[in-house]
Amino acid sequence: MNGAQAVIRTLVDGGVDVCFANPGTSEMHFVAALDDVPEMRAVLTLFEGVATGAADGYARMTGSPAATLLHLGPGLGNGIANLHNARRARTPLVNVIGDHALTHKRLDAPLESDIDALAGTVSGWVRRSLATSEVGADTADAIAAAARGQVASLVLPADVSWSDGAAVAAVPSRRPAPQVPASVVEEVAGVLGGSTLLFLGGDAVLEPGLRAAAQVAAGTGTRLLSQRSPARMQRGAGRPDVLKLPYPPEGARKQLDGVEHLVLVGAVEPVAFFGYPGMDGRLLPEGCSVHVLAAPGEDAVAALQALAESTAPDATPELAEARRPDLPTGELDIKALAEVVGALLPERAIVVDEALTSGYFLPMATVGAPAHDWLTLTGGAIGQGMPVAVGAAVACPDRPVVSLQADGSAMYTIQALWTQAREGLDVTTVICDNSAYAILASELESVGAAGGGERAGKLLDLGGPALDFVALATGMGVPATRATTAEELAEQFRAALAEPGPHLIDAVLPRG
Amino acid sequence: MNGAQAVIRTLVDGGVDVCFANPGTSEMHFVAALDDVPEMRAVLTLFEGVATGAADGYARMTGSPAATLLHLGPGLGNGIANLHNARRARTPLVNVIGDHALTHKRLDAPLESDIDALAGTVSGWVRRSLATSEVGADTADAIAAAARGQVASLVLPADVSWSDGAAVAAVPSRRPAPQVPASVVEEVAGVLGGSTLLFLGGDAVLEPGLRAAAQVAAGTGTRLLSQRSPARMQRGAGRPDVLKLPYPPEGARKQLDGVEHLVLVGAVEPVAFFGYPGMDGRLLPEGCSVHVLAAPGEDAVAALQALAESTAPDATPELAEARRPDLPTGELDIKALAEVVGALLPERAIVVDEALTSGYFLPMATVGAPAHDWLTLTGGAIGQGMPVAVGAAVACPDRPVVSLQADGSAMYTIQALWTQAREGLDVTTVICDNSAYAILASELESVGAAGGGERAGKLLDLGGPALDFVALATGMGVPATRATTAEELAEQFRAALAEPGPHLIDAVLPRG
Repeated sequence: MNGAQAVIRTLVDGGVDVCFANPGTSEMHFVAALDDVPEMRAVLTLFEGVATGAADGYARMTGSPAATLLHLGPGLGNGIANLHNARRARTPLVNVIGDHALTHKRLDAPLESDIDALAGTVSGWVRRSLATSEVGADTADAIAAAARGQVASLVLPADVSWSDGAAVAAVPSRRPAPQVPASVVEEVAGVLGGSTLLFLGGDAVLEPGLRAAAQVAAGTGTRLLSQRSPARMQRGAGRPDVLKLPYPPEGARKQLDGVEHLVLVGAVEPVAFFGYPGMDGRLLPEGCSVHVLAAPGEDAVAALQALAESTAPDATPELAEARRPDLPTGELDIKALAEVVGALLPERAIVVDEALTSGYFLPMATVGAPAHDWLTLTGGAIGQGMPVAVGAAVACPDRPVVSLQADGSAMYTIQALWTQAREGLDVTTVICDNSAYAILASELESVGAAGGGERAGKLLDLGGPALDFVALATGMGVPATRATTAEELAEQFRAALAEPGPHLIDAVLPRG
Repeated sequence: MNGAQAVIRTLVDGGVDVCFANPGTSEMHFVAALDDVPEMRAVLTLFEGVATGAADGYARMTGSPAATLLHLGPGLGNGIANLHNARRARTPLVNVIGDHALTHKRLDAPLESDIDALAGTVSGWVRRSLATSEVGADTADAIAAAARGQVASLVLPADVSWSDGAAVAAVPSRRPAPQVPASVVEEVAGVLGGSTLLFLGGDAVLEPGLRAAAQVAAGTGTRLLSQRSPARMQRGAGRPDVLKLPYPPEGARKQLDGVEHLVLVGAVEPVAFFGYPGMDGRLLPEGCSVHVLAAPGEDAVAALQALAESTAPDATPELAEARRPDLPTGELDIKALAEVVGALLPERAIVVDEALTSGYFLPMATVGAPAHDWLTLTGGAIGQGMPVAVGAAVACPDRPVVSLQADGSAMYTIQALWTQAREGLDVTTVICDNSAYAILASELESVGAAGGGERAGKLLDLGGPALDFVALATGMGVPATRATTAEELAEQFRAALAEPGPHLIDAVLPRG
């Protein structure tokens, strides 16, 4: 058995049976070995940022890692932005990064670069496999490391891959999350009430955690708030409706106003996304004390359930009622867009939200839609949405994926559409097409830099020439239409959802 | 004057008056300051890999750096692959990478990451500017560092940028390249002859260097060979025709066969691009001794001229004659494609070559075309061609740019087409469309991994669904056509060259 075969067999035996791949020469033995281990599903992407984002989306929905296959330093570089997002999402993910043969390293061939340094910026675990006899064990260690909620990067030299003498290694069964000590739960129980806020993140915003938190809220008057950009949130009719921390610092401060005790539950302390002149980046009111019920990675759900049991055993959590907005008519703006989504969102949908400024009305419009999952832009590196939609669709082939995508950000990883077509993924993409980096126009003002200058404005404008997303999608094999009124969007959204496979709708909004 | 204004003014005063930009919030003051320093031309790109590749192409043609404007670690990450290529090209380039305000760093906001580590993998010079009062001087140092033929990365915290109290700094005039000592020239003169090969790179493959080298060759029988992937080579009718080191190791060895003395002239020792099982990555024949006439960065041209003067003062260099292939007819294959390019290449063209396997016949077909520049994929990180074409066209608005682009690689930075349209750049792109990662099919064989397996083959195939490059180009505002015969390609290529502004031709080749 050669090294590549051992890597793939160890991955599959360890539960990692999907690989999002952009191979090159140094990965050719890995590619060849795919025919020896048919349990591994290899999904080709046209750009590494799609591969890494897809692996992130996959793991957010399954809870277990997918692998990527990347080509040396530049291939990893192309995937860095979405690995950054995966790191912020605490996503388990195994990168397999092919490198030159060990014997070739010292020749400083054109593709030689410092892979380890690159990988270190986004990974919790990095290892270069140095011997074919050990590569199975290295792979098993990578899987175990990823399972701790981090990016694990295995650098795989070509000769370690092609040489014989490798062996499959077993991955130890996944260790459950550490439990929160009872004394901590007790301490938090002592501060609950109307001036206390549970700040929820990680697993705590999946249904069981939200229910327990809502039970605490109902019984004690404690307030609830979710972190700004959860990796995966469960919401909709029949589930507690918990607001997310707003993006603008003023809005965030308003939500935190009057809070004397902030309790972190699978989340870290909220801070402003960016610094602004004359503004403190911390958001908590003065004198607010911070308590940690569960640190990220600890069993937040069990801690919340224990807290509910001890403080509000008989309380009934408040749940969102089933209700949908009416289908809007007339002008297509961001409110109408949200109402169309809310009115038509199918059962068990997975919503991937990179709508940015166009998404303002989405939470209100969808809170009573059938129960669904909501995946967000965790690390702020745009170009995540369409790749994450790929991964979510591969992970959950029986669920519809709705990908709500800002236009400027869409262009960062537009190649994801091709993989959606190739794999026949049931993804309905709605491009929020305002022909601008609209978020930057408001940021230009927020940082106090708005001079209204023409040259500055030109750098935020996507209108010359206008991007034709219908042409771009069809050019990659995804059927696409354009909606210029609320009625057209509704009709096209309904039609896209009714058909299997990917579709794209270019929703033309007022210029940003 | 705030920090951003001082940065831009220092750049402009230091000769850096083009900036390829993908700004975000942390760069908004830089964007605003563009209206205060109108001499700076800011070119918006939709993806950072386009910005960095364009800056590379610009500097290859002008010899002086352009700037990029990148958004924190993820923005830099997106630009890493083409910075890798720029590093291998020894391109002068100034990255301005916006970062969080200094006061915001310790809050570990979502976009926080290790920018310095990322930058270090591709830069010869990295500095984080820590005070507004110093940011002008930091910028001047960055320009001076870049001028030494390397990527210089200046990390610019948002508050250093927005605060007042900055000053413009002067950039010392560019230091000429170090001269090669006469004793070295003399030593090399002693080994010239039929079993000696001058291996040329860097400036030595521009016309003056090539002429001097060809004079040496004519007078002494010494052989000439160019490095595999020069940043910029001057060739065509009336110039010496020097072969490039072939990509396949067997072909490279054949070119080096019988060489007893290899003389490096602005190049480094040739090695195989990749390692292969059972093969030494070094290419030189056994016993071949290596001499360095000029190390990269030294004045190779003056050294060659001194060598010619001392060894072959009266010799006449052999120059390529003006001759073009006949226009081909019938089937469109890679030979016909090369002949169309050779037959129609306009005067003073800049050819950007990322044709990869489809480019085999190009050197022969174009050697007698009017004198032109040829820019290649220096670092092996694909997705360089279309961005480099952007930069070359911005650098030389009066020259036609011909961008010969493999299909798989095109998809890495396809967003470059939008900037070509926005800026009205005179770029004619020919997509070599064989619906495959054709180079990988041959590599699968070269590494001895070819099993003909269906699952492996699927990872090299771009045919399902077929990419429609006409739709992709028109979707970004670039007029496009499809050629399926040699005649169609000739007609469309001629028409594209006759019109100003960008055009794309999808040349449909036999499947790779």
